[in-house]
Amino acid sequence: MSTPSRKIPVDLPGRTYEVTVGAGLIGREDCFAPGILGEDVLIVTNETVGPLYLDRLRQSLGSRRAAVCILPDGERFKTLEGFSAIIDSLVENRMHRDATVIALGGGVVGDMAGFAAACYQRGVAVVQVPTTLLAQVDASVGGKTGVNHPGGKNLIGAFHQPAQVLADVTTLRTLPDREYRAGLAEVVKYGAGLDPGFFDWQEQNTEALLARQEHALIEAVSRCCECKAGIVLEDEKEAGRRALLNLGHTFGHAFEAATGFDQWLHGEAVAAGIIMAARLSEKLGHLSAGEAERIRALLDRFGLPLSPPPGSATVFLDLMRMDKKVTSGRMRFVLLRALGESFVADDVSDRDVASVLRQASAP
Amino acid sequence: MSTPSRKIPVDLPGRTYEVTVGAGLIGREDCFAPGILGEDVLIVTNETVGPLYLDRLRQSLGSRRAAVCILPDGERFKTLEGFSAIIDSLVENRMHRDATVIALGGGVVGDMAGFAAACYQRGVAVVQVPTTLLAQVDASVGGKTGVNHPGGKNLIGAFHQPAQVLADVTTLRTLPDREYRAGLAEVVKYGAGLDPGFFDWQEQNTEALLARQEHALIEAVSRCCECKAGIVLEDEKEAGRRALLNLGHTFGHAFEAATGFDQWLHGEAVAAGIIMAARLSEKLGHLSAGEAERIRALLDRFGLPLSPPPGSATVFLDLMRMDKKVTSGRMRFVLLRALGESFVADDVSDRDVASVLRQASAP
Repeated sequence: MSTPSRKIPVDLPGRTYEVTVGAGLIGREDCFAPGILGEDVLIVTNETVGPLYLDRLRQSLGSRRAAVCILPDGERFKTLEGFSAIIDSLVENRMHRDATVIALGGGVVGDMAGFAAACYQRGVAVVQVPTTLLAQVDASVGGKTGVNHPGGKNLIGAFHQPAQVLADVTTLRTLPDREYRAGLAEVVKYGAGLDPGFFDWQEQNTEALLARQEHALIEAVSRCCECKAGIVLEDEKEAGRRALLNLGHTFGHAFEAATGFDQWLHGEAVAAGIIMAARLSEKLGHLSAGEAERIRALLDRFGLPLSPPPGSATVFLDLMRMDKKVTSGRMRFVLLRALGESFVADDVSDRDVASVLRQASAP
Repeated sequence: MSTPSRKIPVDLPGRTYEVTVGAGLIGREDCFAPGILGEDVLIVTNETVGPLYLDRLRQSLGSRRAAVCILPDGERFKTLEGFSAIIDSLVENRMHRDATVIALGGGVVGDMAGFAAACYQRGVAVVQVPTTLLAQVDASVGGKTGVNHPGGKNLIGAFHQPAQVLADVTTLRTLPDREYRAGLAEVVKYGAGLDPGFFDWQEQNTEALLARQEHALIEAVSRCCECKAGIVLEDEKEAGRRALLNLGHTFGHAFEAATGFDQWLHGEAVAAGIIMAARLSEKLGHLSAGEAERIRALLDRFGLPLSPPPGSATVFLDLMRMDKKVTSGRMRFVLLRALGESFVADDVSDRDVASVLRQASAP
């Protein structure tokens, strides 16, 4: 008997779409029924994911005209050139305004294909079919699309809500162990920052999650998407509550940058970042030592990095400042008042940040 | 005594901005008061317009931090590479999310700078300062931004409404004669297609318009913007009434394509296109011969092309079909029921189109 799938509606002003979370969704007839209106489809995928799921996905498309655009795999290809390759493919295949782009892959494919769909003829539909845990719980919901610039990550992009999101947890079985664990860091982020009940559930289901059991995966992905959908609904274009989704990310980005973006996976940097945010919250008197320890312990059981990569506090601080100079102009940290209760602070002193970094790096 | 400026509000759901039409606006202190909120500004202009107005524009910016990005002049530079150059400039100058892009130039500058603003950090403000007649009456209002692709014009872009539009008619004095006349074709388009009273006014003020008299320019630009603002308000993302702004454009695009996009100016192709649309309307029994003749006569007085460029009807038809294959998939013509009353027809036969083209091309 197959596990039933879950549907999470995302209601935005003037548009509603659905996130379907289940096992074995790709390949099912009519799984795209709500999302694809026209006859023309461009499937965007990469060299790793394509061979695994492309044929199965085509079976779901019936008589539609489906072209395919295969990109190289990796964050370093998330550039304007990659975006341009997708646009070329849309033009070459004479796709109209009623065409649909299907993004089959992880966050990189989703971000690039979503951005190309946002810009092609000033906007065509995109259906997200995320195949990594990170993309299922984070990247595919919320409508953020974009590519990197040598001067910073995601500096070029658009808000473009998908017509549909199809999160097939069966695809998570083929994920390399390290990448799967990195995705769990974002799952912890939702629990620790926004949903204490979900954090408890994760503590109780660590083994099922590590074993990638279907029911546990569906529950985890669904709850993350519900959490994110709730926040996106309140705050589509960021500024307020949406910033809370960045728990661990101010530190995390600096850790990624310090290691040249090619040694740590995003989720690994976020894991160490969440721990830094918890320690900073504890140091500033917001969070109890016991709760900070529960967060550390859970990330530890998921086999994630618990301390910053090699590097001085000064270097990390410079990187954080640089990052913010390019984006919002201000250093902001998401801190915790309790498990599941986060808030944004933009008045944290460099000294406190440096002190937490030094303590964590001490042997 | 200076001519008073006119303000046209553009009310869109959730956003309102103003088009100011006047003489000598650039350089006036606080002319940007409603549009620029932050301290950081990137002025995007080209090699022709920059030397003429950049210094004056800087005077209006007070103590703000203004960087400049100068692009080569010409439609052939309206590409992803040009877009990318603007993004690079925003990154290099460390512009934040509260930065404002000022587009100083014609339609090409406005479209590219607007598109870069739409995408930089997923959207920063843009103020349009159009310096050509075409851009003042058409391109700068309505929020369409984008760049060309080798496969078609404006295939990559976004809807991004400006924070403010500043149409300084003084800049029209430096326009080359041919370019100025080409802009008048779009002015005729508004009268002939949407506003019969405005068409009458144009017939009565031909000399003042050709002499580029300030009061006539302010009146003409204001009425075009009012007309366009009304339509954009009803139909921000196209489909319905917004299509009426394309009177003469189905034919016009084919004429531009047939001449390799480098012999006819857009407005010249539109002028011949408006005449074709009027003749087609007459042939199909919608428009009287007298009204079609009034349109032809006005475009003639403005010194615009009255018949298609050399080429066979079959070639033009193929180009029109090709154009529509890439965009909406259907050949649509804006036809006239009377002066100032247009409608969209998607059931016109190739035979009727070919017949009108052949008649007009006959020596």
